[in-house]
Amino acid sequence: MRLTRPAVPLPLQGHVAARAEAGPVMSDAIETLTLSKDVKEIPPKAADLSAWYTAVCLKAELASYSPVRGCVVLRPYGYGLWENLQKHLDAAFKETGHENAYFPLLIPESLLLKEAEHVEGFAPEVAWVTRGGQEELTEPLAIRPTSEVIIGVMYAQWVESYRDLPILINQWANVLRWEKATRPFLRTMEFLWQEGHTAHAHAQEAREETLRMLDVYREFAENVAAVPVYAGIKSASERFPGAVETFSIEALMPDGKALQSATSHDLGQNFAKAYDIKFLDADQQIKYAYTTSWGMSWRMLGAMIMTHGDDRGLRIPPKMAPLEAVFVPIVRSGDDRAVAASRDAAAALRKAGFRVKVDDRDQQPGWKYAEWDVRGVPVRIEIGPRDVESGSAVLVRRDRAKGDPEQKQTVPLDQLAQRLRALLEDIQASLYAQAKQFLDEHTFVVRDRDEFFAKAKARAGMIDIAWCGRPECEELVKAETGATTRNTRPLDEPGARCVACGEPATVRAYFAQSY
Amino acid sequence: MRLTRPAVPLPLQGHVAARAEAGPVMSDAIETLTLSKDVKEIPPKAADLSAWYTAVCLKAELASYSPVRGCVVLRPYGYGLWENLQKHLDAAFKETGHENAYFPLLIPESLLLKEAEHVEGFAPEVAWVTRGGQEELTEPLAIRPTSEVIIGVMYAQWVESYRDLPILINQWANVLRWEKATRPFLRTMEFLWQEGHTAHAHAQEAREETLRMLDVYREFAENVAAVPVYAGIKSASERFPGAVETFSIEALMPDGKALQSATSHDLGQNFAKAYDIKFLDADQQIKYAYTTSWGMSWRMLGAMIMTHGDDRGLRIPPKMAPLEAVFVPIVRSGDDRAVAASRDAAAALRKAGFRVKVDDRDQQPGWKYAEWDVRGVPVRIEIGPRDVESGSAVLVRRDRAKGDPEQKQTVPLDQLAQRLRALLEDIQASLYAQAKQFLDEHTFVVRDRDEFFAKAKARAGMIDIAWCGRPECEELVKAETGATTRNTRPLDEPGARCVACGEPATVRAYFAQSY
Repeated sequence: MRLTRPAVPLPLQGHVAARAEAGPVMSDAIETLTLSKDVKEIPPKAADLSAWYTAVCLKAELASYSPVRGCVVLRPYGYGLWENLQKHLDAAFKETGHENAYFPLLIPESLLLKEAEHVEGFAPEVAWVTRGGQEELTEPLAIRPTSEVIIGVMYAQWVESYRDLPILINQWANVLRWEKATRPFLRTMEFLWQEGHTAHAHAQEAREETLRMLDVYREFAENVAAVPVYAGIKSASERFPGAVETFSIEALMPDGKALQSATSHDLGQNFAKAYDIKFLDADQQIKYAYTTSWGMSWRMLGAMIMTHGDDRGLRIPPKMAPLEAVFVPIVRSGDDRAVAASRDAAAALRKAGFRVKVDDRDQQPGWKYAEWDVRGVPVRIEIGPRDVESGSAVLVRRDRAKGDPEQKQTVPLDQLAQRLRALLEDIQASLYAQAKQFLDEHTFVVRDRDEFFAKAKARAGMIDIAWCGRPECEELVKAETGATTRNTRPLDEPGARCVACGEPATVRAYFAQSY
Repeated sequence: MRLTRPAVPLPLQGHVAARAEAGPVMSDAIETLTLSKDVKEIPPKAADLSAWYTAVCLKAELASYSPVRGCVVLRPYGYGLWENLQKHLDAAFKETGHENAYFPLLIPESLLLKEAEHVEGFAPEVAWVTRGGQEELTEPLAIRPTSEVIIGVMYAQWVESYRDLPILINQWANVLRWEKATRPFLRTMEFLWQEGHTAHAHAQEAREETLRMLDVYREFAENVAAVPVYAGIKSASERFPGAVETFSIEALMPDGKALQSATSHDLGQNFAKAYDIKFLDADQQIKYAYTTSWGMSWRMLGAMIMTHGDDRGLRIPPKMAPLEAVFVPIVRSGDDRAVAASRDAAAALRKAGFRVKVDDRDQQPGWKYAEWDVRGVPVRIEIGPRDVESGSAVLVRRDRAKGDPEQKQTVPLDQLAQRLRALLEDIQASLYAQAKQFLDEHTFVVRDRDEFFAKAKARAGMIDIAWCGRPECEELVKAETGATTRNTRPLDEPGARCVACGEPATVRAYFAQSY
C-alpha cells in the first residue's frame, strides 16, 4: 500500500548503490526490502541464517535501514532491548565503583596521531570533519572511532598525585567507523556502545580491572542475554591497537561462526606515555599510570537475536525483553469483558513490577499471536469469555514449539503474578540451557591436524586446540580455512605440540570462522 | 603541583587560541584556567556572575574544558546531574506515551536541503564530514544539528495509513552546532539533549502534543530543577526554522538575563511536505501528517547552577543532586567509631533509597566541609565522638548561610531517614521559593515607553508589556536596548497599544536580554 511512492523510496538509492559496491558481504535480500512491512515472510532460520536475521530485525521492527550509508535506525522495540542492556550493565558498572561521564565526539587529528599503533589501526576507519559552518578547518577533526585518545588527554590533566587514582569512568556513546556494509547491530558505520576507561597507579591493579570487567561482560551475556560465551585472551594479531593484552568473550552463532561480544583491554603504559598521564607517587617519584579500556556494543543484541530466534521470529530472554508478557483478549461479539479483565490483570502486574501490555487492537487474535511471536515476547496471556467466567487465563510460552504439551497452561487470575514470575524464570533458564547445549555440542577438542583443518573449513563451531601462538601459523590457518583464533587460555598440557603446525604449543586456543 | 608539565598543557593551546579569536564572548578568566585544581577561589557571585559561573563549574568538577574547540567534558559529578534530569524527563515522556529510539548522527546534504527555512536556519552551524577512511565523499554528510530531517525521512517510510499514527518518539543524543565560544552547558559546539519527534493525523492533535510537552518541561524545571519559568509562544523571529509555532519556557538568571530552557515546536505540515510523510486516512484520502518536535538540553543544568548557587559554590536541589547527603565523620586520634557509625547509617539510608556517601578520606573536616559546599550537596551529616555516644548526628543544610540558626539540627540516629527526607523536601521547596521570589521581584509590568526602554537596557529582568507583535518593532527594541522578546501570550486587555511603538497591541510579551 505504498500509494504514490515508488517501491524503493528515492532517498535509499544511494544506500542501495553503496551496498552493491561493497561486494560479498551477506547473502540476504535487503536490496529489495526497505520497509518492515515489505517483509512478507521470515525465511527458515536453518536454510539461510543471514536472510532470516535481516528479515527478523526488520519485521520485528528492531531496526530500519536508513538513507545514510552504513547507518541503521534503532526503532523503539530495538531501543527497548538496548535500554535493558544499559540498565543491567550500568548497574554492574556502578556496583564495581565506576561513574559515567561524557567526552567530546570530535578528536583533532594531531592528538589521534600520538599513539602510533592506535592510529595505524583506526585511521582507515575514521570519518573526518573538514568544514564547520562556512569555514574550512586547518586541522581535520576525527569522529571518535573509540575514545582512548580524548580521554587520555583529559586524564593527563586530571591526574597529579597517586591520590587521584584510580579513575574509573564509563561512557555511553555513539561511535563511528567507516564501513560500507550494513547489517543491523552486527556491522554498521555508526553504532551505540559503552566504553570504560580507567587509570591506575599499578600494573597489577590495571590487569585486575581488565579481568573484572571481562567477567562483568561474561555475567551479562550468560545471565541476562542468555548467551553462553568463552572468555579468553586475544592473539597478538587480534589485539586492540595500542593494547598490551586484549581479552574477549566469544559466542557461537547457529551457522558455526563465532561472534566477539565484548572486549577488555589492558593498555599498560602505552596510552599513558603517548598522552602524558603521569602522577607523583607516594615515594615522590613521577610515574606513568596504567590504563584499561573495555567495551560492549549493540552487537551483543545481534548475538542474542541469532542465538535464540526461531522460524517464527525472535525469542527474547525475559530479562532483556521490552515486554515480558502481552495480553491478547479474545472478544466475542458484543462481549468485551475479556478486555476489561485483561486491563485489570495488566494493571496489577505492572504494579508488581512486570513489563506488560494489553493488545486491544481491532484485529483477529490469530493475527496478533503471529505478530507477538515475531517480536519474541516471552509470554502471551490469552483471556477469553470462558476464562473471564472461570477467573483464569492461559499462559503461552514463546520459547516452546506450537503443539508442545508444555506450551500452554491455565492459571487462576489471582495467582497470575507468581505463576508468571516462575514461568519467566523458567524461560530465561531454558533459553540459556538450549544455547549452552548448542555451544557444547559444537565445541570440538581436536588433536589431529587434518581434522582441525576440515572442521575449521566446514565451520563446525569452536575448535579447541593446543596452539603455538605464532602469527605465521594463524595466517596459514586463516588462508586455508577462513578460521582465526577467537581467544586463548593457558596451556594445560606441558610439552604439547601445536595441532595446526607441529611447533611447541604455548596456549590452548579456540579457532572458528567469525562475524 | 604541575611538576614537569607547563602551566598550560600543550594540547590546550589550540583551544585557548580559538577562544581568543572568538572575540567578546564572556568576561571570565578561562584563558588562565585549565584545571579545576587551578581554580583557587570562587569569585563573589554578585560581582561577576560569568566569572563565578565558570569557576563553580570547574571547581565543583561538573565539567572540564577540552582540547576540542567548543567542546567540554561532562565529568562524573556533572553527569550525575544529567542522569537525574534524564531519569525524571524520561519517566515523564513514557507516562505521556512516548518511546525512545535512535537515529543516525550523519545526514546527507541533499536531504538537509529539502526544507528551505530549516536549512537556511541551520546551515551556518553545521559541521561537515567530507572524508571517510581514505575516500573523499561525493556528497558531504552533516553532523546532526537537530534531527527533524533524518527522522522525517524515516517517518515517511513507516507511515502508510492513519492506523500508523500517532508516532510518539524521543531520542537522547548528542548534537553539534558550529560555535567558537565555549561556556559549560550554556554555549558549546557539541551538546547532549533529548529531542522528541511526533507525527499525527490531525492539526489539533499535533498542537495538543506541542503544549503537553511544553508543560512537561515546565513541570520538570519548576518541580525538579526548582527553576521557575514563564511558558509562552516565541515571536516569529525567534521561531524554530521550519516551525508553524514555537513555544518555550524562559527562566531569569541573577544578572537579569533570561535563559531559554526548553522549546516545543508545532511544525504543522511543513516537514511532512518536505519529507513526504503522508498517510491514507479513514476517508480514503491521502493526506500529509502534522509533526512536532521538542527538546531540552544540558543548558537546563546551566540555568539550575546559576539560579541556586551562592558564594560558597553550588546549591543543588535535592531531586537533582547526585548525592543527597554526605557523611563527614569527625575522627579524634585513635577513635574511629565515628567512621563506623557513619558507614552503618549510610548503609541504612541507601537501603531506604537515599543517595549518600561517607567521606572517610584522610583530610581535616573543615577541608571536607568546604569541598562539599562547593559541590552543593544539599545536606552534610556530621558524626563526632560525642554524637556516637549520644546516638545522634548533626544535619547541616547547604541552602542556609553559615550562622543561620536553622542551618544545623541534631537528630537521633534512629530517626535519621525520616528527618533527612523531611529536610530534603524542605530544601527543595525553599530553593524554589527563593528563585520564585527573585523572578517575581524582577518581573515588571510596564505601561510607559521610556520606562520600558530604560528597564530593558538596564537588564532589570522580565519586562512584561502589551506588544504589537511586529518584527520591525522587535528589531528596534533590540537595537536600542539589547533586549528581545522571550515569549508571548494572549492579550488580556482589548484595545491596548504596544508599549514599545504605540501601534495596536496583539499579545502580551516578556522582553529581556538573554543568554
